[in-house]
Amino acid sequence: MSAVPVPDDQPMLLREDRNGVTTLTLNRPAQFNSLSFAMLETLIAAVDEIARDESVRVVVLAGEGKAFCAGHDLKEMRANHALEFQQRLFRLCGKFMMKLTEMPQPVIARVHGIATAAGCQLVSMCDLAVAADVARFAVSGINVGLFCATPGVGLSRNMGRKEAFEMLVTGDFIDAREAQRRGLVNRVVPIEQLDDEIAALAASIVAKSPVAIRMGKQLFYKQLEMGIDAAYQVAAETMACNAMCEDAAEGIDAFIAKRKPAFKGR
Amino acid sequence: MSAVPVPDDQPMLLREDRNGVTTLTLNRPAQFNSLSFAMLETLIAAVDEIARDESVRVVVLAGEGKAFCAGHDLKEMRANHALEFQQRLFRLCGKFMMKLTEMPQPVIARVHGIATAAGCQLVSMCDLAVAADVARFAVSGINVGLFCATPGVGLSRNMGRKEAFEMLVTGDFIDAREAQRRGLVNRVVPIEQLDDEIAALAASIVAKSPVAIRMGKQLFYKQLEMGIDAAYQVAAETMACNAMCEDAAEGIDAFIAKRKPAFKGR
Amino acid sequence: MSAVPVPDDQPMLLREDRNGVTTLTLNRPAQFNSLSFAMLETLIAAVDEIARDESVRVVVLAGEGKAFCAGHDLKEMRANHALEFQQRLFRLCGKFMMKLTEMPQPVIARVHGIATAAGCQLVSMCDLAVAADVARFAVSGINVGLFCATPGVGLSRNMGRKEAFEMLVTGDFIDAREAQRRGLVNRVVPIEQLDDEIAALAASIVAKSPVAIRMGKQLFYKQLEMGIDAAYQVAAETMACNAMCEDAAEGIDAFIAKRKPAFKGR
Repeated sequence: MSAVPVPDDQPMLLREDRNGVTTLTLNRPAQFNSLSFAMLETLIAAVDEIARDESVRVVVLAGEGKAFCAGHDLKEMRANHALEFQQRLFRLCGKFMMKLTEMPQPVIARVHGIATAAGCQLVSMCDLAVAADVARFAVSGINVGLFCATPGVGLSRNMGRKEAFEMLVTGDFIDAREAQRRGLVNRVVPIEQLDDEIAALAASIVAKSPVAIRMGKQLFYKQLEMGIDAAYQVAAETMACNAMCEDAAEGIDAFIAKRKPAFKGR
Repeated sequence: MSAVPVPDDQPMLLREDRNGVTTLTLNRPAQFNSLSFAMLETLIAAVDEIARDESVRVVVLAGEGKAFCAGHDLKEMRANHALEFQQRLFRLCGKFMMKLTEMPQPVIARVHGIATAAGCQLVSMCDLAVAADVARFAVSGINVGLFCATPGVGLSRNMGRKEAFEMLVTGDFIDAREAQRRGLVNRVVPIEQLDDEIAALAASIVAKSPVAIRMGKQLFYKQLEMGIDAAYQVAAETMACNAMCEDAAEGIDAFIAKRKPAFKGR
Repeated sequence: MSAVPVPDDQPMLLREDRNGVTTLTLNRPAQFNSLSFAMLETLIAAVDEIARDESVRVVVLAGEGKAFCAGHDLKEMRANHALEFQQRLFRLCGKFMMKLTEMPQPVIARVHGIATAAGCQLVSMCDLAVAADVARFAVSGINVGLFCATPGVGLSRNMGRKEAFEMLVTGDFIDAREAQRRGLVNRVVPIEQLDDEIAALAASIVAKSPVAIRMGKQLFYKQLEMGIDAAYQVAAETMACNAMCEDAAEGIDAFIAKRKPAFKGR
């Protein structure tokens, strides 16, 4: 993947598969990887395909060029100044964001540069995020008269409400360390270690039982939306079913025998 | 505003309007600005008036004298020792607290001294809070046999449940830095910089599009109460409507043309 | 309580009552205090008894031996490899965990060593937790092919969703300081100060009005499950009722008279 500007006839999304880890790279560096209508449709198609592909165990979401993702395509929004277009756009965007938590594989955001507006939302909706120490985060729509309402949904589910509110009404940036302190990113490393750190995190997940990760991710987001009593009921059922899987039997037997487990994944 | 004790015939609430920022100052310093029945009624009337006043863009809530606010008026509560009075009092208090999030303008708490019991709740229910480094926070009702049930509602929506629970059952103080770490306040500065810091924060919000701030604040608290799917649906609708506003068109055009936007506000 | 291995004919749970503080100690050190079916039944019986005992004001939950609690008994799970057993086990576990928040007395986890899987869940479900600086925390079921679904319910209600998700899919440990930063434990001290710190915290709660603590704890978890409007309504009612209690009258009168209150507790 080259840092040279990519002409518009280049694919807007790159896919690379290696060792169970699929990297999707937003490839509109000249537009700071903005989430145009076409980009969102491309992302949804890619994510739907991956969701059905059991050979993919972890997804890494990255951006080509200087920025991770600068949010929506403002020029496109102004060129289609009709309520109906805006509604379709933001519904499509929300649909894509929800797919990140609905797909069975854990998704790691690789944040090497700025993540603003819907780009910051993208980070908030990934299951995990690893950032370079030079990365910065803002929900800056308010600077152009457009409150980041949909990014606020993800942001306020990652950090405290006062912390999220301040970012939303000021449009101010926070740096990577502050993003980590607030819960928006999991790990922060110097940019030259970013790929190694993500590779290690992804490999750690790939080494686990696929069926346990799949059942676990689905349960995790389901129970977050529930009262605690109901959450325990569905979690107990999930855990009982998971315990009956071949992988759990193998894992526990290996643990008792003090050997490495050999997971099958079904 | 003088630091000299204010006689009871002085207004219990001071209002100052400057550059779109309205400062409401609790003015019962000898009573540590306690939230008596009359004080709550006065606050509700002031807040209702401000909510309808489009010239007010940001509200600052401050306290005269040594304390920010020490909670309810314990003498008044003992002088009216009837269940019906207590019910009216705490319902009135809750009604006022909810109005802070329901009013269209962002509300900033200016916490220069102690904020205890319902005074701590007041901080928790403001959209934003800036504290002096000497400010301290407690939900100390438990020390007089009265668990801070209603303050706990706000507190547990600002910080972790164990952090809130410890404060509620011990009555212990936390300092301003710890309050910031937990998400109860946004910024902490030396007391001599408190007004400048708040002025800068308020000015940053005043510079934004009024209609975007208004739609945004309303949406923010609405979506916080919803499941994530429903939250995305209302947020997408809000964002689409916001995008159709004159201010957003102007803001985006200015951004593309690399000039400063001129927001109108309707 | 001795550090020497305890034979299986020893009680699996020790109870000690002193000054209103009841310490329950998991006493299967050779099994790292695992939550076997029998251990869970014993814990439920003990907790039910304590809940009815007004002489108990605070509960401390501790573990004998090297570990605090290493979660479920994996050997027992493998020896009973039937879905029906697993369902009964995880439902029983969830029932016990919920009883910790349902019982009227505050429960403090005393975490001196590792707390893994359901042992980490146990910490998350106590009202308060004090840890030795050498304690470590993980939800490590994923290492044996068993996603910690039920521990995730408690964990994701103590810390941010990305922080919880990372622990659940990697099985990695966090140390005591990190657990405190995330909200999983309240206080961290050197291990030689652990008992003094817990004794001081417990004594601070014992000194409070029993009826206020009881009403307060019940209200706290109830309102956490509600929308903010409904939460304020039940909290206002709780506070009004609490204000009518003898202890609140005594507490407020003592505060006004600047003397120490003498709480009765009913």
